[in-house]
Amino acid sequence: MKNFLSVEDVPDLTGLLHKALAYKAEPFVDKQLGVGKTLGMLFMNPSMRTRISTQVAARNLGMEVIVFNVEKDGWQLEFADGAIMKGDKTEHIKEAAAVLGQYLQVLGIRSFPKLTDRNEDYSEHVIRQFAKYSNIPVLSLESATLHPLQSLADILTIKENFQQPRRPKIVMTWAPHVKVLPQAVPNSFAQWVNAWGEADFVIVQPEGYELAEQFAGNATIENNQDKALQGADFVYVKNWSSYKNYGKIIRNDTSWMFTNKKLALTNNAKVMHCLPVRRNIVIADEILDGPNSIVIPQAGNRVWAAQAVLSELLK
Amino acid sequence: MKNFLSVEDVPDLTGLLHKALAYKAEPFVDKQLGVGKTLGMLFMNPSMRTRISTQVAARNLGMEVIVFNVEKDGWQLEFADGAIMKGDKTEHIKEAAAVLGQYLQVLGIRSFPKLTDRNEDYSEHVIRQFAKYSNIPVLSLESATLHPLQSLADILTIKENFQQPRRPKIVMTWAPHVKVLPQAVPNSFAQWVNAWGEADFVIVQPEGYELAEQFAGNATIENNQDKALQGADFVYVKNWSSYKNYGKIIRNDTSWMFTNKKLALTNNAKVMHCLPVRRNIVIADEILDGPNSIVIPQAGNRVWAAQAVLSELLK
Amino acid sequence: MKNFLSVEDVPDLTGLLHKALAYKAEPFVDKQLGVGKTLGMLFMNPSMRTRISTQVAARNLGMEVIVFNVEKDGWQLEFADGAIMKGDKTEHIKEAAAVLGQYLQVLGIRSFPKLTDRNEDYSEHVIRQFAKYSNIPVLSLESATLHPLQSLADILTIKENFQQPRRPKIVMTWAPHVKVLPQAVPNSFAQWVNAWGEADFVIVQPEGYELAEQFAGNATIENNQDKALQGADFVYVKNWSSYKNYGKIIRNDTSWMFTNKKLALTNNAKVMHCLPVRRNIVIADEILDGPNSIVIPQAGNRVWAAQAVLSELLK
Repeated sequence: MKNFLSVEDVPDLTGLLHKALAYKAEPFVDKQLGVGKTLGMLFMNPSMRTRISTQVAARNLGMEVIVFNVEKDGWQLEFADGAIMKGDKTEHIKEAAAVLGQYLQVLGIRSFPKLTDRNEDYSEHVIRQFAKYSNIPVLSLESATLHPLQSLADILTIKENFQQPRRPKIVMTWAPHVKVLPQAVPNSFAQWVNAWGEADFVIVQPEGYELAEQFAGNATIENNQDKALQGADFVYVKNWSSYKNYGKIIRNDTSWMFTNKKLALTNNAKVMHCLPVRRNIVIADEILDGPNSIVIPQAGNRVWAAQAVLSELLK
Repeated sequence: MKNFLSVEDVPDLTGLLHKALAYKAEPFVDKQLGVGKTLGMLFMNPSMRTRISTQVAARNLGMEVIVFNVEKDGWQLEFADGAIMKGDKTEHIKEAAAVLGQYLQVLGIRSFPKLTDRNEDYSEHVIRQFAKYSNIPVLSLESATLHPLQSLADILTIKENFQQPRRPKIVMTWAPHVKVLPQAVPNSFAQWVNAWGEADFVIVQPEGYELAEQFAGNATIENNQDKALQGADFVYVKNWSSYKNYGKIIRNDTSWMFTNKKLALTNNAKVMHCLPVRRNIVIADEILDGPNSIVIPQAGNRVWAAQAVLSELLK
Repeated sequence: MKNFLSVEDVPDLTGLLHKALAYKAEPFVDKQLGVGKTLGMLFMNPSMRTRISTQVAARNLGMEVIVFNVEKDGWQLEFADGAIMKGDKTEHIKEAAAVLGQYLQVLGIRSFPKLTDRNEDYSEHVIRQFAKYSNIPVLSLESATLHPLQSLADILTIKENFQQPRRPKIVMTWAPHVKVLPQAVPNSFAQWVNAWGEADFVIVQPEGYELAEQFAGNATIENNQDKALQGADFVYVKNWSSYKNYGKIIRNDTSWMFTNKKLALTNNAKVMHCLPVRRNIVIADEILDGPNSIVIPQAGNRVWAAQAVLSELLK
């Protein structure tokens, strides 16, 4: 695997899932694989789960890890070709990425979208330029439009929590929020569920919050939450801002918060969220503190997802 | 030892002191104990000594360490039960702690008091919620009211510096400062000296600066610094804000600064401070640069205190 | 080697260059040398290359590394003797350095000049006080007036890129910029080229930008860039602020930007820069994207320079 920017970089999704589960059973089985190799993790935005779980994963493989908060530890980067750098950007991505490629064996990048220019964000020009100029494998720690480490952990969690001889029904539902959030997690989850192909997949959102078709793919799209939840085995709750009316909160219908009343419509569904979650805005306490929530083991699986991916990138 | 939040978590204080001294003599004797285990250190406030000494201690035991500045690297946490999270708190402690418990084997927390609501601070609701929800051992890196790693290093330093066949006289004296400081260090020192039980212990402060009785315990309480210092073998100098008139500087009598004139009243006492210390406000240059100061080896002992505690938490 | 603050600390420059090249060929040949030892890296200013390359170097030697952003992770330090610390400085260098010396085996410091008081900056009082009070080897990660790890990597890069049986001509040329920059990199490069003694060395700058004589040494000084570039085998492009009119940009002649037209005046010179570089202000895209730029491998050599120096400091 050359880079890990989306599910499209994964030649064998089933194999990757098996590898992640194998690491969960035996974390240190490949502890020599990364010895003498360094993972650099560049954060252009805050992170807790990704930051910590990926470090643990890398150490399990014997890798060294260097964490770098780009603008706090260093300086602002210029991404425009041909820029005359007379402003506040101190270094061009061409040098920054190439130099990092001299020091590191794998380069992780977290770079959120600005949510102002859809074409710019959806071109993934930040992470793609790191991949282009660094000459080493690049690992997405969440980019402008996708969060593949999260999605791999999500599929892993679904696989672990469903052992019936039929396809599970997975419903990803929009939920209210108080801030403008990216589409990266829902885009990516949709892309991975589609690539996995072993579930019936429904995406439900209020009108105007439709995801980009390139990620929603063949999912069944609904606008009626109650109807969509019927028979669900898994409910993935998540807020996102509008793709069509880009980066906007076009309305914030609080009746979409996930509660026990909503849960009652499902097939005793397991409830998922990528975290952090705003309690009693996105999901009610009664769900997060109740027996159907699997958000904590879902977060725990981030380690094994990252370890499987790093293992492939080291090859 | 399940957690290390105060001396009350220590089943065998004498054993812990011996263990710390043994590590000082042979730092790497247990270098396999922590292999494959990770200490997470979460800082909600600045730290130098604790941050660095605890990292060194963990590495001496073979542990991996992940340092996380909560609000700079991540986001603000909500600690209130039932909160409707529509403000600037992004994640609830219930999720944050539980997720960290998925990634780490020991969780260190530094969380200072706000010094506005005494009940809130003295309930230790921040560190106690980490302990409650993380499901892994929690290590105090200084909490709202206590700093047990400092106190263990303090007792260790006293033990090393006193080999006479009698009980030492230890005087902890309030000293002036320019900022409002917590009571954590003096509370904790008092609690540990009382638990240790091998010294005559005097606390001296201007009227109104009395510490909480639960920590001062059986110490002799004085208001006259010159009188209290007589015959002292150790003087622990420290500023703190008022407990009674909570979080206030009720007066700042500069005559309480520790000087050679004060030292002359003692039994050639060794002078201690937890650092950082404001020179010529709390303690005069002549003391800190003189032969009676043991503040540097006292700080050095932080490594061995942390290593002994981590060793117990790993069991 | 006791400290590494300038080329004057290096007893055998040829040997150090050979050691760096040996590490480049076999990075892990001394991987036991630093086991159980910790490098602390204190940053009082931003850093990317130094931060990451030095960490990699230390790990190659088996050392542990602790990175500490002084004012973000800790607090402001007082450097004045006899200060009455009633302001915003929380800890005196005397304690801070001495305590670090208790925890670490090597102490790296990055401390930029303030560029307001030339005597203060050129006394190097910050890094020298760390060296004075820490009692352990101190490694400059760029100080007020010098950047010796950069210069060692620079000489290494020149050595690797010149195998002719004659002395290379090296021209260090001032270039325009939009910010006020220190003289540390050009001072240090001049000092090292002079100490190395195996090149013809020219420094060219507009009038008023002359470097301090103690560093420029025996270099040929020119004010005409086109004339100076003639026959150059290496061109080191760098901006710096005025030493004479201290810390000022006395003029910013954009015709000094390094371009293909300037390159054509040279002996097909290799072009160097310490990075970060502002494209199309300091050096044109056509140079940085062209075949004569060696800025990326030059940055890559920072690892081997740091590893050779750390190896000597550990002895």
